[in-house]
Amino acid sequence: MKLAFIGLGVIGYPAAGHLSRAGHNITVFNRTASKAAKWVSEYNGASAASPAAAATSADVIFTCVGNDDDLREVVIGGEGILTTVKPGAILVDHTTASAEVATELAGILKERDACFIDAPVSGGQQGAESGQLTVMCGGDPNDFEKISPLVNAYAKQVTLMGPAGSGQLTKMVNQICIAGLIQSLAEGVQFAQNAGLDVEQVFDVIGKGAAQSWQMDNRHKTMNDKQYEYGFAVDWMRKDLAICLNEARKNGSHLPVAALVDQFYSEVQKMGGGRRDTSSLLKRLLS
Amino acid sequence: MKLAFIGLGVIGYPAAGHLSRAGHNITVFNRTASKAAKWVSEYNGASAASPAAAATSADVIFTCVGNDDDLREVVIGGEGILTTVKPGAILVDHTTASAEVATELAGILKERDACFIDAPVSGGQQGAESGQLTVMCGGDPNDFEKISPLVNAYAKQVTLMGPAGSGQLTKMVNQICIAGLIQSLAEGVQFAQNAGLDVEQVFDVIGKGAAQSWQMDNRHKTMNDKQYEYGFAVDWMRKDLAICLNEARKNGSHLPVAALVDQFYSEVQKMGGGRRDTSSLLKRLLS
Amino acid sequence: MKLAFIGLGVIGYPAAGHLSRAGHNITVFNRTASKAAKWVSEYNGASAASPAAAATSADVIFTCVGNDDDLREVVIGGEGILTTVKPGAILVDHTTASAEVATELAGILKERDACFIDAPVSGGQQGAESGQLTVMCGGDPNDFEKISPLVNAYAKQVTLMGPAGSGQLTKMVNQICIAGLIQSLAEGVQFAQNAGLDVEQVFDVIGKGAAQSWQMDNRHKTMNDKQYEYGFAVDWMRKDLAICLNEARKNGSHLPVAALVDQFYSEVQKMGGGRRDTSSLLKRLLS
Amino acid sequence: MKLAFIGLGVIGYPAAGHLSRAGHNITVFNRTASKAAKWVSEYNGASAASPAAAATSADVIFTCVGNDDDLREVVIGGEGILTTVKPGAILVDHTTASAEVATELAGILKERDACFIDAPVSGGQQGAESGQLTVMCGGDPNDFEKISPLVNAYAKQVTLMGPAGSGQLTKMVNQICIAGLIQSLAEGVQFAQNAGLDVEQVFDVIGKGAAQSWQMDNRHKTMNDKQYEYGFAVDWMRKDLAICLNEARKNGSHLPVAALVDQFYSEVQKMGGGRRDTSSLLKRLLS
Ligand SMILES: NC(=O)C1=CN([C@@H]2O[C@H](COP(=O)(O)OP(=O)(O)OC[C@H]3O[C@@H](n4cnc5c(N)ncnc54)[C@H](OP(=O)(O)O)[C@@H]3O)[C@@H](O)[C@H]2O)C=CC1
Ligand SMILES: NC(=O)C1=CN([C@@H]2O[C@H](COP(=O)(O)OP(=O)(O)OC[C@H]3O[C@@H](n4cnc5c(N)ncnc54)[C@H](OP(=O)(O)O)[C@@H]3O)[C@@H](O)[C@H]2O)C=CC1
Ligand SMILES: NC(=O)C1=CN([C@@H]2O[C@H](COP(=O)(O)OP(=O)(O)OC[C@H]3O[C@@H](n4cnc5c(N)ncnc54)[C@H](OP(=O)(O)O)[C@@H]3O)[C@@H](O)[C@H]2O)C=CC1
Repeated sequence: MKLAFIGLGVIGYPAAGHLSRAGHNITVFNRTASKAAKWVSEYNGASAASPAAAATSADVIFTCVGNDDDLREVVIGGEGILTTVKPGAILVDHTTASAEVATELAGILKERDACFIDAPVSGGQQGAESGQLTVMCGGDPNDFEKISPLVNAYAKQVTLMGPAGSGQLTKMVNQICIAGLIQSLAEGVQFAQNAGLDVEQVFDVIGKGAAQSWQMDNRHKTMNDKQYEYGFAVDWMRKDLAICLNEARKNGSHLPVAALVDQFYSEVQKMGGGRRDTSSLLKRLLS
Repeated sequence: MKLAFIGLGVIGYPAAGHLSRAGHNITVFNRTASKAAKWVSEYNGASAASPAAAATSADVIFTCVGNDDDLREVVIGGEGILTTVKPGAILVDHTTASAEVATELAGILKERDACFIDAPVSGGQQGAESGQLTVMCGGDPNDFEKISPLVNAYAKQVTLMGPAGSGQLTKMVNQICIAGLIQSLAEGVQFAQNAGLDVEQVFDVIGKGAAQSWQMDNRHKTMNDKQYEYGFAVDWMRKDLAICLNEARKNGSHLPVAALVDQFYSEVQKMGGGRRDTSSLLKRLLS
Repeated sequence: MKLAFIGLGVIGYPAAGHLSRAGHNITVFNRTASKAAKWVSEYNGASAASPAAAATSADVIFTCVGNDDDLREVVIGGEGILTTVKPGAILVDHTTASAEVATELAGILKERDACFIDAPVSGGQQGAESGQLTVMCGGDPNDFEKISPLVNAYAKQVTLMGPAGSGQLTKMVNQICIAGLIQSLAEGVQFAQNAGLDVEQVFDVIGKGAAQSWQMDNRHKTMNDKQYEYGFAVDWMRKDLAICLNEARKNGSHLPVAALVDQFYSEVQKMGGGRRDTSSLLKRLLS
Repeated sequence: MKLAFIGLGVIGYPAAGHLSRAGHNITVFNRTASKAAKWVSEYNGASAASPAAAATSADVIFTCVGNDDDLREVVIGGEGILTTVKPGAILVDHTTASAEVATELAGILKERDACFIDAPVSGGQQGAESGQLTVMCGGDPNDFEKISPLVNAYAKQVTLMGPAGSGQLTKMVNQICIAGLIQSLAEGVQFAQNAGLDVEQVFDVIGKGAAQSWQMDNRHKTMNDKQYEYGFAVDWMRKDLAICLNEARKNGSHLPVAALVDQFYSEVQKMGGGRRDTSSLLKRLLS
């Protein structure tokens, strides 16, 4: 079986690495060539000069790029995967993108007798490096059966959520749930500071009850120390929330807090915090 | 040692019961006499006709009533504890109230050589019944030493957070963190439904990552089933958020999402949901 | 001089009528042919079978359709204006659309030596019928000079705001300012009712001071009477706010209240109010 | 007829001056004696050493102090009006305060056969100085008849809105309507700046349509110039919104945008803007 991996960023680089380590025959492509060169020097595998070249004769093609437009470029662009994809090939897309682009690409690939699975991930850089991502898939069950053993090389959990787009929709639910949760955590940390409490003790105590969250467990200390230099970037979060808000327009959902927090992230961006962690919502409360 | 317990509501009734079961000499008071009668029929202990009567010669007096005004009534009202409290006695208040009333009562009791510890709880009805409450205390360390073994009869965790009022301030942080968290969870459940996803599967998957929370673990299923008939009541939550928002006015904290969600709870109340669980925020999104 | 008018909706129908009454030689097109037939029976002028046919040899072409996609369809679609537009012609677009589509179409027309002016309006159905619209234009000053006397046939004010897109950007400012204003007015009307005040008297009194607004003057009475059956539709408002929020993403603006009110309009749509007036925000507060 | 005026602040000083100029026999009191001394040097009238002294034998007593607590102090405090008020006297209170304190004081004065009219104002410093305030009254029609000719000395409009508290409730509606209106105006000004538009031209154009407001007419220029050094102070606005939000809790109103904007004002206060004009909401969007 021949694999291709397009997009060696924070997630793609280690994910492709895990596939290589698992013994697969893999060809990578990255727009900035130096990253591909580095990857090839670190892992077994070839590098190609374009998505089209990487995808040639591949059975499974993985993509993990920035957004809808980036994804369209590497799939249906001039040197895109579509120019070389072989019948029966499966495209597994790890980009967090819209459900719309997923169904659109699924349709386009189908005309070539190829398949598409949207497969956005959560778990971040750390999850990708340790091979512990959570992967939410949308597509055909037969295709899913074929690709899930591969994805397991870098995931702790790979789940088929429904037809094309369902992976993206699930990821949207994830981001919607996080938006207000982090803002409220930031409000809580700030309040605890202003109240003169021992912040760490406060979260040790309340972190065992009904206010508990992964974010509280993992971020209260760093937030209290004003460290926001890692984790999931605000710029990505805004992209994701834009996707959620657009989808909500279509499916009739109301997202008042997600919409509001998205605007607060806009303020964080203006403060220069676009690359900072999502927990930097605290920064605008403290300034 | 002689104990008194004022307020046999959802929390106070079982808490006083645990103290009785632990072998303590305890006298209870409840405004609605029938509840006190029931308690006395179920547990060992006496019942008194007023807070003052219950507190007579008590070493430790527990209170668990509704709000600031109720607390003032049972402490400094006509037949209040203050009329009979003995020097050296400690008043442990489990009401979720303002930090202001805590410092006010601490001052008043001090003039009588008595002590005050604010000790709001989390864990709800279930925690009270199973003796697994979390108790956040504010007061003097020496007093805390004396009362914490007693409180352990119905708590899994009893912590001194600082001087008088610190227990209440800690509880406020708890409620602030919960406010936006539940609203975002409600937005997520609603979105998942509108997106045609298998809601339980969605939360099984995302509940293992960065969006995880106690509320997600424990409420996504019931929310999806539109069951809001238990847990922590919206009316209590609004009382608590009013306390938080007032305190924030004083300590210079900004609580945009807590303030907004408080108004959404106002809509839930209008829909007749005041006694429903806080997760009923979903109701206004679905209607 | 020969004119064409594409889109005989609530705004376009009477606007084209004013041009005809002013004595201009005008050809209209409407997707739904019956509206064009009705127009031709009411005014002097011809009707054409497609935008392309209407635009043939026209000196100035007016468009007033729904949104960006509709506009692209009538300009660059199969039977669009672009297939027949003559060099030197000016396209005046009254659609409320994005600034992006304005600059895009301006560029495309320039390649044909034709010109584009984005010219969204305010004033609504009443303004269009009475010839009292306010028109905000973006484009070249020379082109503006040529078309403004024509537009004056149905406008009380026609202003050039800057280069292509500036008309749309100005209209966005208008919608941003209205969003929170109407919501606050709705909150005020609701509060006045709940407070048992004589609502009309309240707004007579406060309507002369610092809370005054066009919306307060013109809508408090109808809101108080729960009449929302006219004016600017919620569905249009949501389209416009989506445009504003997208543009804000690009230019770094923060629109917390516009974003929040947009979500409240989403709730109004769910209540079946998409065609109701924007003042129907009150409906969700009262339900 | 003998008059007393308690509280010679921004509003009270010129209002009392107008009464003096109208030829009334008036005695003033101000906590900070220097202001009273200055007033006496500028106008005909006496000054007294306490509210009680000023109110002695007065037929009508005016108050204009900061908030509920201040009002209680000058009325029912140790040297308060109540100690000397004569039967039949009418207390006219211009403080923006709660409806609760109005009904409370009305009750207390009634026991002394005296009367109370809550009479909050709008129009600000300029309105007070030019004698053009708007005054919203709550109380008994007979009492209102007696005092309205006096109030006309400094008001352009004096209206009885209903029983005690109705003046305050009307003022609350005013503040609720203003809250989101100014925030949206600030969002609009900021967006216009970021869009590179000629801001003054934008507001000249849209200020004639459905987005028009007194605030837009009177503040867009100063906001665009970042001048916030006059007008109605943020600290006062927060006090007023707290009153509105408390009353809404009681009468079942939902004020999501007022609650949110109140929190934004909290951020403005933290930036040192408590004494700045309410239009300084723009400041937090630009920082
Ligand atoms: N329920 C929960 O899950 C949680 C509750 N809390 C907090 O604990 C406190 C108690 O809650 P809960 O037990 O649920 O409330 P309940 O309404 O069940 O009980 C309230 C108790 O207070 C008494 N009481 C109220 N006002 C007065 C008064 N003026 N004079 C005398 N007695 C009075 C009531 O007497 P009567 O029987 O006569 O009405 C009753 O015994 C609240 O502050 C709540 O916010 C905190 C965490 C969780
Ligand atoms: N109504 C108002 O109060 C105001 C409206 N506006 C803006 O003006 C624009 C028009 O509004 P309004 O006149 O009320 O809208 P209407 O829905 O009344 O009319 C829309 C017009 O556009 C035509 N149209 C839509 N899509 C297409 C398409 N793809 N191809 C060809 N024709 C199309 C429709 O044709 P058909 O008849 O076949 O449907 C109809 O003639 C909108 O952008 C709106 O936001 C601005 C200010 C106020
Ligand atoms: N300024 C404005 O534009 C408007 C104000 N208002 C409302 O009018 C009221 C007064 O505002 P404004 O005149 O601007 O306020 P100022 O701060 O200028 O004046 C307040 C006055 O109240 C007196 N005062 C305050 N507390 C006490 C007290 N406990 N005992 C005795 N005197 C006291 C002050 O005395 P001292 O001089 O000793 O401090 C001062 O005379 C407020 O409720 C405000 O919200 C309403 C509309 C507009």
